[in-house]
Amino acid sequence: MVDKMHAYAGKILRVNLSSEKITIEPITKYTTRFLGGRGINQWILYNEVKPGIWPFDPANRLVFGTGVLVGTPAPGACRYTVDSKNVYTGGVGSANSGGHFGPELKFAGYDHVVIQGRSRKPCYLWIDDDKVEVKNAEHLWGKTTWETDDLIREELKDDDIQLADIGPAGENLVRAACIINNGARAAGRCGLGAVMGSKNLKAIAVRGTGAIEVAEPQRFMKLAEELLEKINNAPRMDFFKPYGTMTVAQHDNDNWSGCPVRNFQDGYWEKSKNMRCEDLVKRFSKRSLGCFSCPISCSHWLSIPAGEFKGVSGEGFDTNTINNFGYKLNINSWPAIIKAHVLCSQYGLDVDNTAGSIAWAMECYQRGILTKEDTDGLELEWGNYKAVLELIKKIAMREGVGNLLAEGSKRASDKIGRGSQKYAMHIKEQDLYETLRYRKGWALGVIVSPRGGGHLRGAPAFEGNVSPGEAEKYYGVRTAADRKAYEGKAKIVTWMENFKAVLDSVGICSLLSWWKSPHLIGPEDVASLLEAATGRHVDVQEIMKIGERIHNVEKAINVRVGMKRKDDSPPDRFFKEPIKSGPGKGDILERDKFEKMLDEYYELRGWDKRTGLPTRSTLEGLGLKEVADELEKYGKIAESAKER
Amino acid sequence: MVDKMHAYAGKILRVNLSSEKITIEPITKYTTRFLGGRGINQWILYNEVKPGIWPFDPANRLVFGTGVLVGTPAPGACRYTVDSKNVYTGGVGSANSGGHFGPELKFAGYDHVVIQGRSRKPCYLWIDDDKVEVKNAEHLWGKTTWETDDLIREELKDDDIQLADIGPAGENLVRAACIINNGARAAGRCGLGAVMGSKNLKAIAVRGTGAIEVAEPQRFMKLAEELLEKINNAPRMDFFKPYGTMTVAQHDNDNWSGCPVRNFQDGYWEKSKNMRCEDLVKRFSKRSLGCFSCPISCSHWLSIPAGEFKGVSGEGFDTNTINNFGYKLNINSWPAIIKAHVLCSQYGLDVDNTAGSIAWAMECYQRGILTKEDTDGLELEWGNYKAVLELIKKIAMREGVGNLLAEGSKRASDKIGRGSQKYAMHIKEQDLYETLRYRKGWALGVIVSPRGGGHLRGAPAFEGNVSPGEAEKYYGVRTAADRKAYEGKAKIVTWMENFKAVLDSVGICSLLSWWKSPHLIGPEDVASLLEAATGRHVDVQEIMKIGERIHNVEKAINVRVGMKRKDDSPPDRFFKEPIKSGPGKGDILERDKFEKMLDEYYELRGWDKRTGLPTRSTLEGLGLKEVADELEKYGKIAESAKER
Repeated sequence: MVDKMHAYAGKILRVNLSSEKITIEPITKYTTRFLGGRGINQWILYNEVKPGIWPFDPANRLVFGTGVLVGTPAPGACRYTVDSKNVYTGGVGSANSGGHFGPELKFAGYDHVVIQGRSRKPCYLWIDDDKVEVKNAEHLWGKTTWETDDLIREELKDDDIQLADIGPAGENLVRAACIINNGARAAGRCGLGAVMGSKNLKAIAVRGTGAIEVAEPQRFMKLAEELLEKINNAPRMDFFKPYGTMTVAQHDNDNWSGCPVRNFQDGYWEKSKNMRCEDLVKRFSKRSLGCFSCPISCSHWLSIPAGEFKGVSGEGFDTNTINNFGYKLNINSWPAIIKAHVLCSQYGLDVDNTAGSIAWAMECYQRGILTKEDTDGLELEWGNYKAVLELIKKIAMREGVGNLLAEGSKRASDKIGRGSQKYAMHIKEQDLYETLRYRKGWALGVIVSPRGGGHLRGAPAFEGNVSPGEAEKYYGVRTAADRKAYEGKAKIVTWMENFKAVLDSVGICSLLSWWKSPHLIGPEDVASLLEAATGRHVDVQEIMKIGERIHNVEKAINVRVGMKRKDDSPPDRFFKEPIKSGPGKGDILERDKFEKMLDEYYELRGWDKRTGLPTRSTLEGLGLKEVADELEKYGKIAESAKER
Repeated sequence: MVDKMHAYAGKILRVNLSSEKITIEPITKYTTRFLGGRGINQWILYNEVKPGIWPFDPANRLVFGTGVLVGTPAPGACRYTVDSKNVYTGGVGSANSGGHFGPELKFAGYDHVVIQGRSRKPCYLWIDDDKVEVKNAEHLWGKTTWETDDLIREELKDDDIQLADIGPAGENLVRAACIINNGARAAGRCGLGAVMGSKNLKAIAVRGTGAIEVAEPQRFMKLAEELLEKINNAPRMDFFKPYGTMTVAQHDNDNWSGCPVRNFQDGYWEKSKNMRCEDLVKRFSKRSLGCFSCPISCSHWLSIPAGEFKGVSGEGFDTNTINNFGYKLNINSWPAIIKAHVLCSQYGLDVDNTAGSIAWAMECYQRGILTKEDTDGLELEWGNYKAVLELIKKIAMREGVGNLLAEGSKRASDKIGRGSQKYAMHIKEQDLYETLRYRKGWALGVIVSPRGGGHLRGAPAFEGNVSPGEAEKYYGVRTAADRKAYEGKAKIVTWMENFKAVLDSVGICSLLSWWKSPHLIGPEDVASLLEAATGRHVDVQEIMKIGERIHNVEKAINVRVGMKRKDDSPPDRFFKEPIKSGPGKGDILERDKFEKMLDEYYELRGWDKRTGLPTRSTLEGLGLKEVADELEKYGKIAESAKER
C-alpha cells in the first residue's frame, strides 16, 4: 500500500535488466528545469545516452514518464511518454500514449521508469506499488499484446493491472514496432517497441494503490471543474465527442485535398464518400471509450457484426488509421480497416510507420520497381486489403518481403535501389503520413519535428480552421487563418512546439489543448493547475520557457548525432508534384518560400540558419550552459561550427 | 558426404535466423573481382547493409568467409575472416582467425556463411556437410566458450566438429566481445561476438568431409613444397618458430620504448626484464600448437604447474596479450597474464579491446577521476592483477563498473565526462593497443586502418627491422629501414593494405607473408598458387589491384556512414606527450609531419586530401563505378562533396 504523495514528489524507478539491479531516485533534482514526463525523460537521455550508443545497444535507455498532473482530476491528465533513441533517426525517439497505464504507474508511486541494459532472457517487469520484480517471460515470447495482457493478468491474479507491452513486432526488432497499452493505445512512433524488444522486455505490468495529493485541493478541484465546463461548452464538441479526430481525414480531403492519397501521389480520394466516420460509428461502435480523467471519451469499442471480418472487435482509432489505410493505401472498406488496425494492435505495430512502408511498396509495384517476384506473390494493387493484411503479418514476423518492409521505406529503398528511393516518403528516415502541400505551417511543424516527422509537435491543427479575427485574437498571427500563407507560420510552430513540450511533461492530452480551438486547455490553465498542485508559484512565461528548454535539449540530442539543416527537409515530391485533383488541385510546397519560412523558424529559435545548429547564447539563455559546452566539444554549436 | 570441389567453386550458405530460411548461392559471381574471403564478405556487406543499419539491427549481416586457398596444402592457408558492422565505429567491422574452423567450413562445401536476421531464441547453426540446421541453444546460453564446445560436441556425438562461438560477453552485447574457435583462437576486433549475440546465435558447428580439388595438382604441390622450404630456411625462424610474435613486445620495449606502457603514458617498462617469452615457454609450455597447414606452429599449450593459478591451462597468445596485460596494465606475472588470457577466451572477449577499457579506467583511477566508489571498491592500481581479473569478469557480465567498461573507453569516457575523454586511447572509437610514437609508417598504418585501429592492415612490421639495402631491394623504399622517417612510409602502408586484402581473401596467415621478412610468401607466390589452384592465368598486378579494390570498398563503407579525414587521426597524446623513458625517450609523433604523410597516403590512394573522400576516377579505375555512383548520391564522393 502506497500512501498519498505530493504531485511533485514522485520517484524515478531505475531497472538495469543486465544486472537486475533495481534502484529508486528522487525526481526533485529535475522538476524545476524540466517539470516531469517527457522533459525529464529527455534530460535523462541527454545525459546518459551519448552519441555512439545505437538504439538496440544495451546502453540505450528506454524511459517511461507520466507527467506532473497525471493521476489528478485535471481533465485529460492521463498520458505517459516513452523516450529513447529513435530506431529510424538515431536521434530523438519519443512517443506518447493515453489510456490508464500512466495514472496507474503514478498511483504506484513512480513518475518515471528508466529501463537500461538487456535481460539475458525474455522478461517482464512487475511493479506492485513498492514491490518491483523482473519476472520470466519466456512463455510470453511470441504472443500478441492481447494474449500477453490476458496471460499476465491471469498469472498475477489481478484483472485491474495496467500493462504496456510489445507484440511479436517488437520482439523481432521491426522498426515500426510500438508499445501498446489497454490493447489498442499506442506509444507509436520512433520504433520504441523494438527498443523494448532489444532489451528482451516483453511488458511492464503495474498495480498502484496510492493516490496523488495536491497542495491546494480545493483550488485544484475548482480549476478542474472550470476546465471541464469550458471543454464541454467548447465549439464543435458535437463532432469531437462522438468522432474524435476521425473527422479530420474526410474534412481535409473534401475541403483541401489534404490526404496522403496513394503514397502522396495525390491529396484527394474520390472514394472517400464511402468512408465517412459517421457511418463507421453507426455501423460498428458498441460503446464510446475514454482515457483516465477525460471528459471527451473520443474513442470507441468497435465490433464487426457480419461479413468477411465478422467477429473482429477492438478499440478504435484516430485519424491516423483512416488516413493510412484508407486514403494512403486506398482501402475502401471499414471492416478491412478495422481488421488492419486490430492486427497492428495485436502485433504491436505503429499504423503510421507500417502503412508508410506498405505505401512505398505499393507505389513501387505500381511503377514496376517491385513485381510479384519480390512480394512473395502478393499483388500490391492500391486498395488490395487482403494483401495489406498479409503484409502487416509479414512485417511483424519479418517473413519474406515483410523482412524488407520491417526496415521502413527509407532503408528498404536504400537496400533495393532501382530508383525506389524517391518513393520513400520519410522525414529524418521515419515514415510519414502527414501530407505537406495543403497547409504551410502544418508542413513546417511536421518537417522540423525532432522525432522525425509526425504532426504532434509543432504542426498547428487549427491552421486554416479559424477566421482571420480569431487567428489574430488567439494566436497573434492573422495568417493562421490562411492555410496557404507561409508568413507568420514559423511563430505558430515555435509556440506549439514549446507548449507541446509542457503538455507532455505534465501529462495532459494534447487533443484537449490545441485541437482546432483556443477554448480548451491553454498555458494559463496549465500554470494554474501546476500552482494548485504543487503549492509553488508558477508563471506562464516560466513554463513556456521550460517547454523551450526541453525542445532545445531534443535539438541538442539530434545535432549531437550529426543532424543539420539538411535534415529539416521533406521528400522532394512535395516540392515537385502538385496535388492532382479535388479542391486543392495544384497545391504544392514552394521550395523558396519553404526555405524562407525555415529561416524564420531558426531565427525565432535562436539557432544558426546556415547549419541549423543551436547557438551558445540561446542555450545559455535557457540555462543550458552544460549543453552548449558539450556541443562545442563535439563541434556541433553554431559559433564554433568547424564542421567536425 | 561432399565430393571434392574446385577451389573456385565454393558455395555461399545464407541463413536467415528470423525466418530460419536457408539458401545456397554460387560464389562465382564474385570471385573475379573480389577473390574470396574478406573480399567477398565486404562486397556482400557493401551491397546488403546500407547506412542506417546499426550493428545490432537484425538487418545487419555477419559474414564468415574462408578464402580461395583455404583447405589446400598451401602453407598457412587456414584463416577465416568475419565481417560485419563494427560495433565501435559503425563502419567496417572485420576480424580474422586461424585454427581449424575455416578449413572445416571449406571441407563442408562452403566458402562463406552469411548470417542475417535474428533468432527468436538462442540457437546454434549446425553445418554437417550439406545438411544445415538451426538448433536450439537455450541450454547453452550463459555458458563459456569452452563449455559450449564440450556440450555441442557431446550433443552431436562428434569430437571432430569445429566450432566458432561466443561466450557470455557476446550474449551480453559487450563491445569487446569476440568470436572464439578452437578454445583460444579469436576473430577478435570490432566486437563481432556482440553482433553474433545480437542475433541470438551462440555458435556455428561444422563438420566437413569433402576435400579441395585444385586445377593443377602437381604444380600446386610443387609450389607448396617450395614455399615450405623457403619458409623453413627464412631468417629468424629460430625465434619465430618457438615464440611466434611473443618476442615483439620485449624487442620493441628494449630497443625502441615501443610498448603501450600504462595506457601509453610511456613506451618503456622497466619491469619487462622479468617478462621474457623464453621464460614463459620454458616454464609453462606443454607443447607447441599450430593451425591447419602451418609449417611454423607458433602457438603453445600452456599450463601453470603451481602457485596461485595452479591448474590453469589453455592455448597461448601472440604479442597482443603480453602488450595488453603486461606492458599496458603493468601486470608483472606470467601466471596472472595466462589467467587473464584464459578468462578472455572463456568469456569470449578480445584482449585488445578489453585491456583498452581497463587501461583507461586505471589511468582515470591514477588521476583521481575514478575512485573506489566508481569501481565497486576495486583498487585499480597499475599491475593489480586481482582487480584486472575481476574486471574481465565484470565486463563480460556487465556487472557494476563492468557495465560501463563494456562500452569501450571512448563511450565510457563520454558517459562519465570529468575530463576522462583524453585518456580514452582509441581510433575511430575502437580501443587501441598499438603505440604510435616509435615507428612512423606503423603509426600511419594503424591510424588509417578502416576497421578502427589495429596493426593488421597496413602497419609494416618490418619497418626499422631491415637494413637500408634490404629496404631498397625488397620494398623499393630505402627509409623502410628508418623507423623515425616519415618519408616513403605512405607507399609502404598502401602496398601493405592492398596485399593484406589479398591474403585475407585467399585465407593465408599474414604472419607467413610479411612478418619482418621478404623471404616468406609474397604476391608472386600467391599468384602462382592461385593459378595452379584455379587453372586460370593470374597476374600479380591483377591480384594487387583486387586488393586495392577491396580496400576501396571498405573505404566506401566507412565514408558512407560519415567518416572523413578527421577520423584518420590518433589520440592527441601521441602528438603531445613524448616517450618518457628508455631508449626511445623523447620520441613523439609530430603533427605536421604526420599530416603530410597522411596527405601522401591519400594521394597514393587517389582520394581527396582535404576531405579524405574517394574520387570517382579512382573508383572507376578499379571497376567500382557503381560505388562511385552511390557515394555521389550520398554526397560522399570527392568531386561532388557538397558535404551533405
